[in-house]
Amino acid sequence: MSSRIRRIAISTGGGDAPGLNAVIRAVVIAASDRDWECYGIREGYNGILFPERYPEGGVFRLTRDRVRGIGHLGGTILGTTNKGNPLAFPMRMADGTVKEVDRTGEILDTFARKELDALVCIGGDGSLTIAHALHKKGLRVVGVPKTIDNDLDKTYTTFGFDTAVSFATECLDRLHSTAESHQRVIVVEMMGRYAGWIALHSGIAGSAHAILIPEIPFDLDKVAAKIRARDQVGRMYSLVVVAEGANPATGHRSVLEEASAGQVERLGGIGEWVAKGLQDLTGKDARTVVLGHLLRGGSPTSFDRLAALRFGAAAVRALAEGQSGVMVALALPNVNYVPLDEVAGRMKAVPPDCDTLQTGRDLGICFGD
Amino acid sequence: MSSRIRRIAISTGGGDAPGLNAVIRAVVIAASDRDWECYGIREGYNGILFPERYPEGGVFRLTRDRVRGIGHLGGTILGTTNKGNPLAFPMRMADGTVKEVDRTGEILDTFARKELDALVCIGGDGSLTIAHALHKKGLRVVGVPKTIDNDLDKTYTTFGFDTAVSFATECLDRLHSTAESHQRVIVVEMMGRYAGWIALHSGIAGSAHAILIPEIPFDLDKVAAKIRARDQVGRMYSLVVVAEGANPATGHRSVLEEASAGQVERLGGIGEWVAKGLQDLTGKDARTVVLGHLLRGGSPTSFDRLAALRFGAAAVRALAEGQSGVMVALALPNVNYVPLDEVAGRMKAVPPDCDTLQTGRDLGICFGD
Amino acid sequence: MSSRIRRIAISTGGGDAPGLNAVIRAVVIAASDRDWECYGIREGYNGILFPERYPEGGVFRLTRDRVRGIGHLGGTILGTTNKGNPLAFPMRMADGTVKEVDRTGEILDTFARKELDALVCIGGDGSLTIAHALHKKGLRVVGVPKTIDNDLDKTYTTFGFDTAVSFATECLDRLHSTAESHQRVIVVEMMGRYAGWIALHSGIAGSAHAILIPEIPFDLDKVAAKIRARDQVGRMYSLVVVAEGANPATGHRSVLEEASAGQVERLGGIGEWVAKGLQDLTGKDARTVVLGHLLRGGSPTSFDRLAALRFGAAAVRALAEGQSGVMVALALPNVNYVPLDEVAGRMKAVPPDCDTLQTGRDLGICFGD
Amino acid sequence: MSSRIRRIAISTGGGDAPGLNAVIRAVVIAASDRDWECYGIREGYNGILFPERYPEGGVFRLTRDRVRGIGHLGGTILGTTNKGNPLAFPMRMADGTVKEVDRTGEILDTFARKELDALVCIGGDGSLTIAHALHKKGLRVVGVPKTIDNDLDKTYTTFGFDTAVSFATECLDRLHSTAESHQRVIVVEMMGRYAGWIALHSGIAGSAHAILIPEIPFDLDKVAAKIRARDQVGRMYSLVVVAEGANPATGHRSVLEEASAGQVERLGGIGEWVAKGLQDLTGKDARTVVLGHLLRGGSPTSFDRLAALRFGAAAVRALAEGQSGVMVALALPNVNYVPLDEVAGRMKAVPPDCDTLQTGRDLGICFGD
Repeated sequence: MSSRIRRIAISTGGGDAPGLNAVIRAVVIAASDRDWECYGIREGYNGILFPERYPEGGVFRLTRDRVRGIGHLGGTILGTTNKGNPLAFPMRMADGTVKEVDRTGEILDTFARKELDALVCIGGDGSLTIAHALHKKGLRVVGVPKTIDNDLDKTYTTFGFDTAVSFATECLDRLHSTAESHQRVIVVEMMGRYAGWIALHSGIAGSAHAILIPEIPFDLDKVAAKIRARDQVGRMYSLVVVAEGANPATGHRSVLEEASAGQVERLGGIGEWVAKGLQDLTGKDARTVVLGHLLRGGSPTSFDRLAALRFGAAAVRALAEGQSGVMVALALPNVNYVPLDEVAGRMKAVPPDCDTLQTGRDLGICFGD
Repeated sequence: MSSRIRRIAISTGGGDAPGLNAVIRAVVIAASDRDWECYGIREGYNGILFPERYPEGGVFRLTRDRVRGIGHLGGTILGTTNKGNPLAFPMRMADGTVKEVDRTGEILDTFARKELDALVCIGGDGSLTIAHALHKKGLRVVGVPKTIDNDLDKTYTTFGFDTAVSFATECLDRLHSTAESHQRVIVVEMMGRYAGWIALHSGIAGSAHAILIPEIPFDLDKVAAKIRARDQVGRMYSLVVVAEGANPATGHRSVLEEASAGQVERLGGIGEWVAKGLQDLTGKDARTVVLGHLLRGGSPTSFDRLAALRFGAAAVRALAEGQSGVMVALALPNVNYVPLDEVAGRMKAVPPDCDTLQTGRDLGICFGD
Repeated sequence: MSSRIRRIAISTGGGDAPGLNAVIRAVVIAASDRDWECYGIREGYNGILFPERYPEGGVFRLTRDRVRGIGHLGGTILGTTNKGNPLAFPMRMADGTVKEVDRTGEILDTFARKELDALVCIGGDGSLTIAHALHKKGLRVVGVPKTIDNDLDKTYTTFGFDTAVSFATECLDRLHSTAESHQRVIVVEMMGRYAGWIALHSGIAGSAHAILIPEIPFDLDKVAAKIRARDQVGRMYSLVVVAEGANPATGHRSVLEEASAGQVERLGGIGEWVAKGLQDLTGKDARTVVLGHLLRGGSPTSFDRLAALRFGAAAVRALAEGQSGVMVALALPNVNYVPLDEVAGRMKAVPPDCDTLQTGRDLGICFGD
Repeated sequence: MSSRIRRIAISTGGGDAPGLNAVIRAVVIAASDRDWECYGIREGYNGILFPERYPEGGVFRLTRDRVRGIGHLGGTILGTTNKGNPLAFPMRMADGTVKEVDRTGEILDTFARKELDALVCIGGDGSLTIAHALHKKGLRVVGVPKTIDNDLDKTYTTFGFDTAVSFATECLDRLHSTAESHQRVIVVEMMGRYAGWIALHSGIAGSAHAILIPEIPFDLDKVAAKIRARDQVGRMYSLVVVAEGANPATGHRSVLEEASAGQVERLGGIGEWVAKGLQDLTGKDARTVVLGHLLRGGSPTSFDRLAALRFGAAAVRALAEGQSGVMVALALPNVNYVPLDEVAGRMKAVPPDCDTLQTGRDLGICFGD
């Protein structure tokens, strides 16, 4: 691994996140400054695993010209995928059965054949686990964390999260006037399967009246009580933010009992379930808005652009310093490097004693507990 | 009606729309300039019909101070309602039956008792019909058109529409990168029960690949063909905009047959139905985003603020000129007045030969026909 | 001119305007749909007049791929210039003198040599005059109007104007709180050399307290009186919008007398001059903000995107219909075509009797008259 | 100081900053939750020092109702001032001379007379110094840091900075297309008298080509060389960000020599000076845009809203815990408290070795050194 770097490859895996292109831009420019050539791998590792799909090349040259003016664009010029983990790739065998096969060897072969000296891998928990495996097999690898949900441990935050919170807050702003004019309960469901960061931050910034997150099992009766208390002082509407991974603890039996997994699904998700329950409990008209897909895309905020550029530049510096098997992390005020084996499989939930949660409570927001 | 005006009242009816507060602000300031006093009626005509609900007054003074700084805020400081049409108010009779009662007499009485000389009524088709009835009973009335959907006849546009189109376009911008990164079909359902203006304008501005509107019955097979054609030239994703009032013409039998009204409802609306159909027809992963409530609220764009202020000021000028029974309308470049009886019940649909639709066709957008 | 079109060229001239790329995109896609090939001319006509400057071609192929995803980007992929009018091009003669030469012949020759059958020319008054000359010399030409200032006659509006008004309004929003907190007069100078449309529209939408435009010579004493009147009712700050072409009529001698053209220049423009005068007259702290360059760029609003796309598609339809020597215009609700000789040199000023101006007066805004 | 709190006062001092109202809202709601009454002091301490100026009360009750819906508004409902430091208040003596007088005694008297038990003071370095003095004289005081420039030590960041960076970045985005279309150098001057944080963050996020900050004395020749190098590879425009406190080190004598303080002033600030110098050195057309006042106002970003709410809530918790003489600080991921005597007079400059600066260098941005 001590040999001089001349060519590096970049890969983006998992879901879309605002700032991916800014990371790519920073990697390419910072690497070009060191006279390294950059190559992009299309759609995770598909550019290597399925070269036949890409007539223009599954691994293609990234020049300064190619990344000009992409820093503020959403999406990723490399494409991404969250199918086909090369560590356990589902393949149909001769006997018709499907087996999961380790295809990382093909990736290493391609790196060797194309004389690619290192990989910058931008992705979430899954992608970083693959990166870690490639590192252990001898590839020079630096990971860049990506998670809109902000649920990756060991980094204060990542790019994409601020953009998502910002847009979710704008949506809450918009819904206030409509909910108030129509005296309704509006339930806003947003991303956050395992951690409620987006719901918590946007809910407080956007003046929601209740916020339900996976970390705090909720009692729907308490939410209903909050809504009724508001009605009694003449505040005839309420906004309820629900992370998609929020879970009812107890309470409101009549709805809860029928809410087997399948039925929640049928209702269109937890947001719909909460709205229906609150309508039953309060007698008020309740509606659901699901933000899901809207939070993934779009132009990154200045905060996320800067974070993404810092991550990309730091990844190149890490390689130049001879590092491998590390993830770039934000340990404010600076970036640092964290060994990949300390990252994989570690989830960062909202801590019950964090001051942000306490701020919500001080502001009278109901968390359903 | 020729007597001098000293006091006027303002009412907002129907759904929320960005710009309502700007109209109110303009009416109050322009009227104060003429030394008229202004009063707001709470929640449509509820402030008059149910005074007991409003301890602080169902009809309350609006001063310059009260309307300061509200021009860029969403919602309406008067509140609004789309329940309880005073022309046919549902009332429980002594025998337990419910009858629709004309309660406009109570409104006229209140105007007389409070010495209110005129009414500025801001609302959609329903509200303007009530305004027309009040005018015919002798009240001095000027209407201000409100319809986010832009489906009111006799006015080029109204406030709220530009804000809705603007936000819908921003949402499409955000969805492009995610749909592309994930190679998905994303179906975006938006307001437009009878007219497809929002879908048409935002769909073109936001580079949608198909736009389905009530004015053009659609064939889902044609939309699917468009998506497949894009796939074949390497554009592996598509955005489909669907107005909530869009209707399938023929085609895609297997889904269409089961789509009785109830079933479309169960599926969560036409967007969900289109997504499911396209997934069946193309084999691609398809998702739905419903913008509905998000389009009603929020701060008005500068275009809508200006339109709202022009409408409000023109309403006061109309009263000052002795007019009644008219609606303020935008006949660009200027405002003019249209008799209310020419407005009520007239819907402005997207004309099949308008150049905007032709622009969409020239850009290769599929309209399902 | 009746021959079938197979190749067309596009040119953008004059200053930057949000929406140029959307026009280009619409022209290319609509033309490709008709199996026409499109070519872009770099920087006005420089790509033809100075081919040596463009190693990659002064006239280059524009494919669908080349215009993908550019509709929401500011600027123009063709580049633009407001130097070097080919009708009167300054050239150094053998004897050292500089003479203005008509170089349109070179443009026609290039069109002939490259077998370009028509030109879509996007530009302001100057560019449309050139287009008209080329048309008279036999070239098939359709013009697309461009003017952020909205001062072109014969079209209701053009792309770019709404974006400029929108941003100027946002700037005024931002300045309100600072001006109020610091109890200052803030003078905001914005584009509008000959017509005050941007100042008028953004000033009203952004709740300015005075608006000074070229169409209404202003008396600074009246503006000062407005500011003092606000102070007396406890409104200790004022926002004054000034179009760069606004002119003092009479009044405030002490400042006016020293304000020869050179001195206004030295002060940094009319905004600075107004601020200094108001500070003298009111004794209040006054500051200037000059928006100029900020209003030209940026991503077009949805309104401007749609207008630009409609213009571009209509230009292609005009050519397909055999038209030449016309400008596409917005005659709401539709586009139409206007002969170029009715356009050139005609300026659209704010009419003294328009309802927008009257709205401003009704809202108590001071116009300095 | 150990007595139970029943009434607290809030004061905002210094310049406007987005988020002030959110802090006030959080303080009022969190305090009301503890059954404390809240009072606002108008315009720094003017409400106490000049009660006669405020007929409606220089110290007035802040209820939950009064702070409803203000969290996303710019400015401060209390007003602010940066004149009249009560520690050294300029007062005209009987003999006509002006002496600086300590008026903190009047403040303490008023607190005693009105039975105000504690003060939450929101402000910058100057305001926190006053707060510290009041604390030393026995008042229970908690400070909330305010500085758009982000130059306060001991806190990672404060509210307002992200909004300023966000808007500055948007302005740079807008200027790219215009600078490119016109092949110009555009110099953008922004706040940052002592520290270049806004310039650094927005310059990197907004893809500036050179960034000049107070921490790095610049050589204009190096900036000119960067511009020429860009020209040579066909990038015919450049954006140069200049913090208002940036200083030339050496270089470009002809301009520098005439640039005595007075002359820089005459030129309209450092931005103008840099533009003129670059025009001389490169022969390119150069323009200046001064953002100054635009960065102070406006609606806070979601990041700043949340930071402001956390600060406000934490200030109340600090008082409830019996703390005094401390400033709330952001020590991510949580807030903490820092003694006021460790804060006053300590400036946080951009450290020469921070990774953000290194990111800029890795991206090829010229810092003039």
